[in-house]
Amino acid sequence: MAKEITGIAASSGIAIAKAFRLEEPELNVEQKKISNVEEETARFEKALQISKEELEGIKEHARKELGEDKADIFAAHLLVLSDPELINPIKDKVKNESVNAEFALTETANMFVSMFESMDNEYMKERAADIRDVTKRVLAHLLGVTITNPSMISEEVIIIGEDLTPSDTAQLNRQYVLGFTTDIGGRTSHSAIMARSMEIPAVVGAKTVTADIENDVVVIVDGLDGKVIVDPSQEVIAEYEAKKADFEKKKAEWAKLVNEPTVSKDGHHVELAANIGTPDDVTGVLENGGEAVGLYRTEFLYMGRDQLPTEEEQFDAYKKVLERMKGKSVVVRTLDIGGDKELPYLSLPKEMNPFLGFRAIRLCLEEQDIFRTQLRALLRASIYGNLKIMFPMIATVDEFRQAKAILLEEKEALQAKGVEIAEGIEIGMMVEIPSSAVMADVFAKEVDFFSVGTNDLIQYTLAADRMNERVSYLYQPYNPAILRLVHMVILAAHKEGKWVGMCGEMAGDEIAIPILLGLGLDEFSMSATSILKARSQISKLSKQELEGHMETILQMSTTEEVISYVTENFHIEK
Amino acid sequence: MAKEITGIAASSGIAIAKAFRLEEPELNVEQKKISNVEEETARFEKALQISKEELEGIKEHARKELGEDKADIFAAHLLVLSDPELINPIKDKVKNESVNAEFALTETANMFVSMFESMDNEYMKERAADIRDVTKRVLAHLLGVTITNPSMISEEVIIIGEDLTPSDTAQLNRQYVLGFTTDIGGRTSHSAIMARSMEIPAVVGAKTVTADIENDVVVIVDGLDGKVIVDPSQEVIAEYEAKKADFEKKKAEWAKLVNEPTVSKDGHHVELAANIGTPDDVTGVLENGGEAVGLYRTEFLYMGRDQLPTEEEQFDAYKKVLERMKGKSVVVRTLDIGGDKELPYLSLPKEMNPFLGFRAIRLCLEEQDIFRTQLRALLRASIYGNLKIMFPMIATVDEFRQAKAILLEEKEALQAKGVEIAEGIEIGMMVEIPSSAVMADVFAKEVDFFSVGTNDLIQYTLAADRMNERVSYLYQPYNPAILRLVHMVILAAHKEGKWVGMCGEMAGDEIAIPILLGLGLDEFSMSATSILKARSQISKLSKQELEGHMETILQMSTTEEVISYVTENFHIEK
Repeated sequence: MAKEITGIAASSGIAIAKAFRLEEPELNVEQKKISNVEEETARFEKALQISKEELEGIKEHARKELGEDKADIFAAHLLVLSDPELINPIKDKVKNESVNAEFALTETANMFVSMFESMDNEYMKERAADIRDVTKRVLAHLLGVTITNPSMISEEVIIIGEDLTPSDTAQLNRQYVLGFTTDIGGRTSHSAIMARSMEIPAVVGAKTVTADIENDVVVIVDGLDGKVIVDPSQEVIAEYEAKKADFEKKKAEWAKLVNEPTVSKDGHHVELAANIGTPDDVTGVLENGGEAVGLYRTEFLYMGRDQLPTEEEQFDAYKKVLERMKGKSVVVRTLDIGGDKELPYLSLPKEMNPFLGFRAIRLCLEEQDIFRTQLRALLRASIYGNLKIMFPMIATVDEFRQAKAILLEEKEALQAKGVEIAEGIEIGMMVEIPSSAVMADVFAKEVDFFSVGTNDLIQYTLAADRMNERVSYLYQPYNPAILRLVHMVILAAHKEGKWVGMCGEMAGDEIAIPILLGLGLDEFSMSATSILKARSQISKLSKQELEGHMETILQMSTTEEVISYVTENFHIEK
Repeated sequence: MAKEITGIAASSGIAIAKAFRLEEPELNVEQKKISNVEEETARFEKALQISKEELEGIKEHARKELGEDKADIFAAHLLVLSDPELINPIKDKVKNESVNAEFALTETANMFVSMFESMDNEYMKERAADIRDVTKRVLAHLLGVTITNPSMISEEVIIIGEDLTPSDTAQLNRQYVLGFTTDIGGRTSHSAIMARSMEIPAVVGAKTVTADIENDVVVIVDGLDGKVIVDPSQEVIAEYEAKKADFEKKKAEWAKLVNEPTVSKDGHHVELAANIGTPDDVTGVLENGGEAVGLYRTEFLYMGRDQLPTEEEQFDAYKKVLERMKGKSVVVRTLDIGGDKELPYLSLPKEMNPFLGFRAIRLCLEEQDIFRTQLRALLRASIYGNLKIMFPMIATVDEFRQAKAILLEEKEALQAKGVEIAEGIEIGMMVEIPSSAVMADVFAKEVDFFSVGTNDLIQYTLAADRMNERVSYLYQPYNPAILRLVHMVILAAHKEGKWVGMCGEMAGDEIAIPILLGLGLDEFSMSATSILKARSQISKLSKQELEGHMETILQMSTTEEVISYVTENFHIEK
């Protein structure tokens, strides 16, 4: 009997194939007395070694297929397996209590997991999840149990799971895994984000899929409308085959726009740029017709390692991106660490409210060595392309002035040494703190451009942590307060002849695009995979017509009013 | 030889007296084998009991002299001493290891302290400080050592300390302790806040006072300019006696204004109200000539206890405040818990960014039983005075509408039962989240009044945790972004014929007052002890003249520009 399950559309597209249940292996551990401590320790060391090798493989796979940021998750897992605070107590237990390695491992890991979980702190809970994930792997090797390896799948399937761990998702083989669906998760959970970047249709948070779906049953995953159909009739299959064909056709239409400029129906040109994290990401930008890099997040250079990157390492990365973009604009954001992005080797203090804490430009203005090294690397790389530099988390005019002064100091010092530096590098700032939006007219006199960082701007403007599920209803990109602030920034910038970009999730969102175009946004920076769809949508929208609606939208009271007005009145590309 | 030490002016006034060093007793603990476990346990129980009694005494003293909120600190200390998770391991240690109680106590307490401190979480660190503070007390009783008790001081002195703990400050006898100065601390540290509410002159953060000042040396504490003069000459003493007399004269002038209305030089009337936490605080409001209660924080009703207050308990408190204010306006803020204010009996989840989390109206709209109980108590009490109700942490129009709808539901239900409720209770909201300031024109159509909560508004607008020292430079009340938001709120409200109050620290600040008056703020709500000074300042300012400067101020770039402009152009009362 066919059954329809509703979930959250996490990654677009339609997939039809047999179900493949990704099941957790049973790992039963008994306490045993051992006689040979050395032998048992060696057995543990071997399981540890194999696990590390596997994780290195997964990490490499993730790095190539998914980018540096996704690979960092596995770098973190590898660090867990090398942490003497975890490993030594296990060996001690084997030695002092003459117990088997499985038991010593499980006991020790459980102790850490429950300690971290009891801390009731989200960061610590993630560490607990990491320990659980890697321990499972080592334990499976000790027990000689095979962990289902999604990379081994060699026929077309749809994966059904309670949730996919990052390691599960990273190992999916796009050739055979046509789609997936999970009981839990949301649009911003790890597996959802990965699905989008891999372009695998996915429906998450579908509650009962593991309960309702047996292996080998035919399943349809509708990632456009968030539906899962189990054991569909031939008619339903035909219907979805048609929907799939439609979507593919639409994608083919989008693909034709790869070398086209982005022009609205009434001839207004805007720039569609991409957000990147590493030089390797440039490939995706070019393949998807990105006209620029609107946000190069430089944090990844600093993460998953045990010391600061040198000036040369940074120079090489920046040069590579600039060269590969061949004269197209590359906006580099200077270091934004602190807050939720930690660097173990900097030993930043834990804060009660890290999102309101010592991070980004606040840290750079105090730890000037780190900041100046990055600025030198950027300035030296500037001659290899079209570099623009922007500072994150600017809250006050003072901060921008200080940051700019330091940049100019480094520039002069380099020039004094005879180093060649590009002329007229534009210096801008992120607008992601409410004060800078409110003061945009003052800032506009001092910057060359703004880039609105909506992810943070929304969470500060509505005072709601975007990672906290209990207040996630307040993460409202279309809230009129946000639209008004964006409007203020654009007005202020244009008055001074400056341009405004946007590099948050919102810039690639089909509901936001008509509003942003109507408000006069100049540059939209998004995930590379969203660019072609956005270009298509913009080509069907008239800027002048949109402008006529803006006053109405800015006077609305709620997010819901905005959404219905936009979906009723403008072309929404899906 | 006279010596001048510079520190932070924490509480106004001049004090001249002999130094009294508040020193930590030496508490040396040795490990001893004991033979009689029962005797040792009894000894421990007795020390525990005496400590509890002392703390009850301090708590009562604090409650009467300083108010309910200060007393809560000691309620928390008492909870520590009743916590079986701390007490049982100590007794077990005495029993199982046959060690003396001093040793068992110290070892166990240190274990908890270092565990909590290592968590690198500010909340846990405070718990560690609590444990350290109460353990010291119990240990002193076990060792028969006397802890210097500031309440025993019976001659006029100035207290010199590294820092004053809350229990130290709460015990100060205003009659004999003329002033104090400490090595560490800032204007917002516990001891500074307490000094202001006790009106004891204080200079904190004076770094070397314990190193530089011996017992019985004459010391001048200048809480107006943040100076400490050690062993002054007769000339200097005379100079400060004169300064002190000047200040007393000024205070006497202020005192004359107690029954006067608050009127600017050009005849514009504003309302000076007070922030209160408990019914007892009304005494201070009336003594200081408060024209209203601009913020009644109802959290204290919920704190320092082990279950929710009943509707009757709340009704009694609200009725008492309304009656004692005799028809003067009382603005009650509905429950603002969560975030940094936790209630153990609600077991709220720990959050990564509690200031951006599930608190105040967010919690009340979900936990409606708690909210509705409070609203019923308020509605029933409304006939005893002039009640106004406001909702905290409103971020969206939806939230205000929901909260108001619930209030009206409860009103109708009560009326259906024949309960009498006052006519025309004004319903307003806090403006403390940037989105609500930006949307003030929309909100103004739906509310009866606004109260700007600057403490939170500043921290969200500048995205800087006001409790985090590393970003405390961003807590900028005079930042033009904040002034612009306040201006937007006032303009929007007045256009709809609604009034605007302010209940953050800023409302009583002498630099802010001329700006707020110039922008048209209708009600200023502050600590009761600031009211007379503010009334005097306002009487010397011309609103019309100030208005002429507002455009200039709102166009400024930085906080520093604003401060110098205000101090150069307007009357600042000190």
